[in-house]
Amino acid sequence: MARVNENFEKLPGSYLFAEIARRTEAYQQANPDAALIKLGIGDVTQPLVPAVVAAMHEAVDEQANAATFKGYGPYEGYDFLREAIVEHDFKARGVDIAIDEVFVSDGAKSDCGNIGDIFARDNRVAVCDPVYPVYVDSNAIEGRAGEYDVDAEAWMNITYMPTTAENDFCPALPDAPVDLIYLCSPNNPTGTALTREQLTRWVDYANDRDAIILFDAAYERFITEEGLPHTIYEIPGAKTCAIEFRSFSKTAGFTGMRCGYTVIPHELVRQGQSLNALWMRRQSTKFNGASYIIQKGAAAIYTPEGAAQVQAVIDFYQRNARVIKEGLESAGLTVYGAVNSPYVWCKTPDGMGSWDFFNKLLEEANVITTPGAGFGPAGEGYIRLTAFGEADATREAVERIKRVL
Amino acid sequence: MARVNENFEKLPGSYLFAEIARRTEAYQQANPDAALIKLGIGDVTQPLVPAVVAAMHEAVDEQANAATFKGYGPYEGYDFLREAIVEHDFKARGVDIAIDEVFVSDGAKSDCGNIGDIFARDNRVAVCDPVYPVYVDSNAIEGRAGEYDVDAEAWMNITYMPTTAENDFCPALPDAPVDLIYLCSPNNPTGTALTREQLTRWVDYANDRDAIILFDAAYERFITEEGLPHTIYEIPGAKTCAIEFRSFSKTAGFTGMRCGYTVIPHELVRQGQSLNALWMRRQSTKFNGASYIIQKGAAAIYTPEGAAQVQAVIDFYQRNARVIKEGLESAGLTVYGAVNSPYVWCKTPDGMGSWDFFNKLLEEANVITTPGAGFGPAGEGYIRLTAFGEADATREAVERIKRVL
Repeated sequence: MARVNENFEKLPGSYLFAEIARRTEAYQQANPDAALIKLGIGDVTQPLVPAVVAAMHEAVDEQANAATFKGYGPYEGYDFLREAIVEHDFKARGVDIAIDEVFVSDGAKSDCGNIGDIFARDNRVAVCDPVYPVYVDSNAIEGRAGEYDVDAEAWMNITYMPTTAENDFCPALPDAPVDLIYLCSPNNPTGTALTREQLTRWVDYANDRDAIILFDAAYERFITEEGLPHTIYEIPGAKTCAIEFRSFSKTAGFTGMRCGYTVIPHELVRQGQSLNALWMRRQSTKFNGASYIIQKGAAAIYTPEGAAQVQAVIDFYQRNARVIKEGLESAGLTVYGAVNSPYVWCKTPDGMGSWDFFNKLLEEANVITTPGAGFGPAGEGYIRLTAFGEADATREAVERIKRVL
Repeated sequence: MARVNENFEKLPGSYLFAEIARRTEAYQQANPDAALIKLGIGDVTQPLVPAVVAAMHEAVDEQANAATFKGYGPYEGYDFLREAIVEHDFKARGVDIAIDEVFVSDGAKSDCGNIGDIFARDNRVAVCDPVYPVYVDSNAIEGRAGEYDVDAEAWMNITYMPTTAENDFCPALPDAPVDLIYLCSPNNPTGTALTREQLTRWVDYANDRDAIILFDAAYERFITEEGLPHTIYEIPGAKTCAIEFRSFSKTAGFTGMRCGYTVIPHELVRQGQSLNALWMRRQSTKFNGASYIIQKGAAAIYTPEGAAQVQAVIDFYQRNARVIKEGLESAGLTVYGAVNSPYVWCKTPDGMGSWDFFNKLLEEANVITTPGAGFGPAGEGYIRLTAFGEADATREAVERIKRVL
């Protein structure tokens, strides 16, 4: 008799954004005239930039012609894209990454979700709390999380590292031994970025213990402050302890296009095995490369005109982030993030619960946010707002929120 | 200390096609003037058809405009594509599949590789021998294959079902209990298709034992003989025991575009759990949907003009298959497949080993094939040729082979 993976049954409730969608739809059905403004899910709204559009049209035309048609591509991505990545995302910042340390994929979410394939099941996982749910749920499915404690809202074999205003949004180094450490900077959901000193502490900690940092840098392009690391490989020693995930989703509006990449340095070795080689084997067995057309589009953001166009879109989102931050602060709320991130992490007023504040903003201001508790227990007392909306709608949402406070 | 998944270390040698590429490159470097013809890897050569190209251009333009821009799509694929699939791939054959039983993805290889996520680790896996390596390697990575026996060239916990001319390329029902049964029809690599009667025996066997059939129908469009099932759901009872994988790769030249889909009927339940719901959870956690542009292109093959154009390309490949089959038969070789498949499965002459015959054809005829032994021990004594080449090159390759026999 075929038996299912029993870990699925342990997964609590529904996926956070599905629950938000459910509540939103129920409210909209009961109030069909309400004009909702969505500052909840982190999805982009601005179209692809002209350089990307032109590159994709060109790639489609190549596929229409036998002389230029491309079939299966390399599992790890085309060199034209990997070379551009190495040059512009790393070399330009003084970081030396080899082309064959870069694996292009259909997105950072897939890579974050699938990376567990190359690790043993008995590794101890540490995550920040609050946390992007994919890190936790993928480990739960793979059996690395143990049992779920409903009262504590926590998996018994996962080490949660509270990441709140109290510790300046940099988790304390764990007391108990941990093996796989997920860090995300700039952080989703808190919108805060780790400094060079903070990240150095983590790299040293991981190297001391032969732990591995799974570093999600999907929001790197939103860093505006000088001196913050854009890649973990700016930190000495990171190549022997860190895997980095990157995304074109927020950088270039690729949420619906699906492209990202993962960096695994050759120096990253455990039990005598190259993690780069393990991932190559995983990808060649269970993946068949990202779409050629999408890779051509991604490469276009590294041309001078593509880079300028993409930066203009990021500037647009950054202005939204400032509007939200300054608006909420002017209303007396305490706000984090926004400066180096498209995310604004806002403390609820008067110790209100985060789902309660979510409901209040939905029902009274018709603004959809994300309750911080959905990202983990330490997210209780916060909500997340995103800067990916239209400029007018974002301003309107902030005004509405101010009116109901 | 982080520990790696020790199953990777057990995986034998390199991936089959990597080894072929290595030998081919070594030969080409030693013989730079040799004009090699590749009939080895199953990659297409004909460009995307005009209807698909037009749909993709249109989709790119939609992404260039804020009013029509699409961000994150549904994890399970857009309804416009799932509706077309249900209508044309199933309803048109008298099979009733609901839209929410269809999961669009970045390709059948990803789905075949990832499906193990929803099953317990202690299921007993059965595969045909010879077999598409992804089924075996993905289970080996997940720990379901046990230890690798180098002498037997077999994993100790996998049940291999010899599938050869002796049993008419339909494996015998296993004596020992098995839980997950991979079947591929039309088959890769043997090019043969299971009849309704043969497939019915398997469906009945699986239902009797609560086993599950993982049915790979990637080559369904190549069926030419009347009366053969195109989907396993044409067989009564299949909905309670089968998952079906489909691909646009060979149907529509999408090997480099990346799109396929998986069907999981609601009736498929084990231990009280809906496998459809488990896969939805897996995909929403570890995948973020297939690219919008690629899905628009895939949907275009279901329009009247798209369908006719795609059929013309398949006819072209089918003519190649006939040229190979008839040419090799005229030279006295025994040949299987080709009639309902782009694959030709050819017995080596005089009991020659399949890597030896591969080497002979590479070195003497400058034709690249795939050695049957690369697909499993029972593939020894065969080579696989594919019909995906250019027509002239295919004819030339057959003439060259005939000359060296």
